Amino acid sequence: MKKIGILGGGQLGRMLLQAAANYPVETFVLENDEQCPAAHLCHHFTKGDIRAFDDVYHFGKGLDALTIEIESVNAEALEKLEAEGVKIYPKPSALRTIKDKVVQKQFYKNNQIPTSDFVITNSLAELNEQLHFLPAAHKLGMGGYDGKGVQLLRTNADLEKGFDAPAVLEKLVRIKKEISMIVAVSDKGDTALYPPVDMVFDNQLNLLDYQISPAQLPEKVLWKVEAVALKVVKDLKSPGIFAVELFVDIDDNVLVNETAPRVHNSGHHTIEANYSSQFDMLWRIMLGYPLGCTDHILPAAIVNLIGAEGYSGEAVYEGLNEILQIENVFVHIYGKKETRPGRKMGHVTVLSKEKQELIHQANRIKHSLVVKSN
Amino acid sequence: MKKIGILGGGQLGRMLLQAAANYPVETFVLENDEQCPAAHLCHHFTKGDIRAFDDVYHFGKGLDALTIEIESVNAEALEKLEAEGVKIYPKPSALRTIKDKVVQKQFYKNNQIPTSDFVITNSLAELNEQLHFLPAAHKLGMGGYDGKGVQLLRTNADLEKGFDAPAVLEKLVRIKKEISMIVAVSDKGDTALYPPVDMVFDNQLNLLDYQISPAQLPEKVLWKVEAVALKVVKDLKSPGIFAVELFVDIDDNVLVNETAPRVHNSGHHTIEANYSSQFDMLWRIMLGYPLGCTDHILPAAIVNLIGAEGYSGEAVYEGLNEILQIENVFVHIYGKKETRPGRKMGHVTVLSKEKQELIHQANRIKHSLVVKSN
Repeated sequence: MKKIGILGGGQLGRMLLQAAANYPVETFVLENDEQCPAAHLCHHFTKGDIRAFDDVYHFGKGLDALTIEIESVNAEALEKLEAEGVKIYPKPSALRTIKDKVVQKQFYKNNQIPTSDFVITNSLAELNEQLHFLPAAHKLGMGGYDGKGVQLLRTNADLEKGFDAPAVLEKLVRIKKEISMIVAVSDKGDTALYPPVDMVFDNQLNLLDYQISPAQLPEKVLWKVEAVALKVVKDLKSPGIFAVELFVDIDDNVLVNETAPRVHNSGHHTIEANYSSQFDMLWRIMLGYPLGCTDHILPAAIVNLIGAEGYSGEAVYEGLNEILQIENVFVHIYGKKETRPGRKMGHVTVLSKEKQELIHQANRIKHSLVVKSN
Repeated sequence: MKKIGILGGGQLGRMLLQAAANYPVETFVLENDEQCPAAHLCHHFTKGDIRAFDDVYHFGKGLDALTIEIESVNAEALEKLEAEGVKIYPKPSALRTIKDKVVQKQFYKNNQIPTSDFVITNSLAELNEQLHFLPAAHKLGMGGYDGKGVQLLRTNADLEKGFDAPAVLEKLVRIKKEISMIVAVSDKGDTALYPPVDMVFDNQLNLLDYQISPAQLPEKVLWKVEAVALKVVKDLKSPGIFAVELFVDIDDNVLVNETAPRVHNSGHHTIEANYSSQFDMLWRIMLGYPLGCTDHILPAAIVNLIGAEGYSGEAVYEGLNEILQIENVFVHIYGKKETRPGRKMGHVTVLSKEKQELIHQANRIKHSLVVKSN
């Protein structure tokens, strides 16, 4: 059996390991938190820091392949492991392109991949020279995740919220829709595209409300979305799973927002809704099997379960029984002992042929199921 | 989080633990083989004998609930644990009724549940007095599993194959179909029936060829099947998952063959084909959640992957790549290191609206995918 490791032991690792149990593979996880969601689902757990060269190198040495759950891993160790014959998904070169948002944005520009206009700022002083560029999003080059490391700068008064470090200042796009495309790339370079996902935001709070797949797009826009997402992964020149997030602007231009070189929140519905889930697909890639079928079995919606404001401590899932009574609903709770405001604690998938039913149940779930603490 | 244990660590435990990772639950497995398919997927693995009183009692003490993967567990220990407040799925009383085939058969008779005619034989000498009862199946009371402990006695010459121990001699039924019904029973006694499964046998070798769900049955026969299966679980008076195997004879009579008080091979397609799988359903029952929806998302076929004759040793899955290229196919390999002739090594599920497509792919899988050894 092949030995395959995962850097990070959160919910993505957890769902990867649920899928791994369909195949002959020996699994390894590196993570500092021994109580993490994935710790008990692998064959071999190693306590260690995914950002530390030695921890990653010693963990990966002797494995057949490695993948990641998060971009903030030690890329130098992965490069050394790759040079010594360990297969890395994604390749460290692709990871380096993506993990620094400055490099990522320049990669889009250099490869003529459509993306919003931007300037690089290395300090607050440099940012202050770009007043004419507002309104814009300021994105920290390294270290941002889950909404951290991004500031919306609408007026001059917002400038103090900017980053005094290398960052990208991106012109705000007049967005009609936000779309995510999950793309699979095999070792041979074969690709498979999942149907696009419509990421529906609450306009007032700028929170992701729910995701619907497949996204409703005019055919010509769908073609652009697919072409742009394919170009991103082709230019990254790496096998693996990629989530390409895109904007469709009010003129139906398609612009890449950012790319994640790994399984992604916007693909969780594929567990139930598609023949081969994004997790199944990554194992197929790493084990050298044929790519799976990305077709829908049924259309789906996802609602994320986020720790409610004002609650920290042992998690309690209020409203869970009500939601589990809905026939076409699938609950995924990540088994994190402690909730905190904004922490991703689980997700719920709805399957239905009817878009109105998906939206109706997504809203019901959002209002009924709340993660609090004792 | 509730603490829930499984007696046995084979493929049923493995699939239970894959499903457990959707819920907040701390999992435990008792099994002698530390390399078993479920060992690495639980929070806490205990090496021990599921048939030994002390091992089962110490394992279960302090847990909230226990379930089983196989009937041949120590029932005395489960009775003591139940008396001390541990919830057991199924209840030890139901397990005792089922695990001895003599008692099981008498239970059907005492409860007016239709079943084939039978006599009890306690020895070969007693068997020899029942020549007029042939052709019949002779089933060992205790200790039979997976086809072991069953002999077909067609003529007097077969009598020497019978068991010199307490056993049931069952008159052969003129079978039109074999059906399996998975039934869920909650703590409160609520029940949910899965669609019936058609168990299709190879008439020449008497091997299970594949399973199709839902079974094609005239409405009146379906009603009988459902009524008989429900009566079995109601009379067993226990929460849990039950697989009721039934014969439909050439006159459309419905007779119970036997019942398993646990998740079952004939329900594996529910992982992909039904909203709530049999594994998901058992966690819902044990965690006190509402019962899930047993409806099909799509009809399904299952093919079991059995170790090929003539091969023992480290397993090799010949033809796997070809099968993984089929769009509507889901492969489950149980991760057993060693194959042996007849050993259950995995199963493959096919989903399709078209019954002909299910049968076509099931046959293709049976002929293309072979478990050999190095």
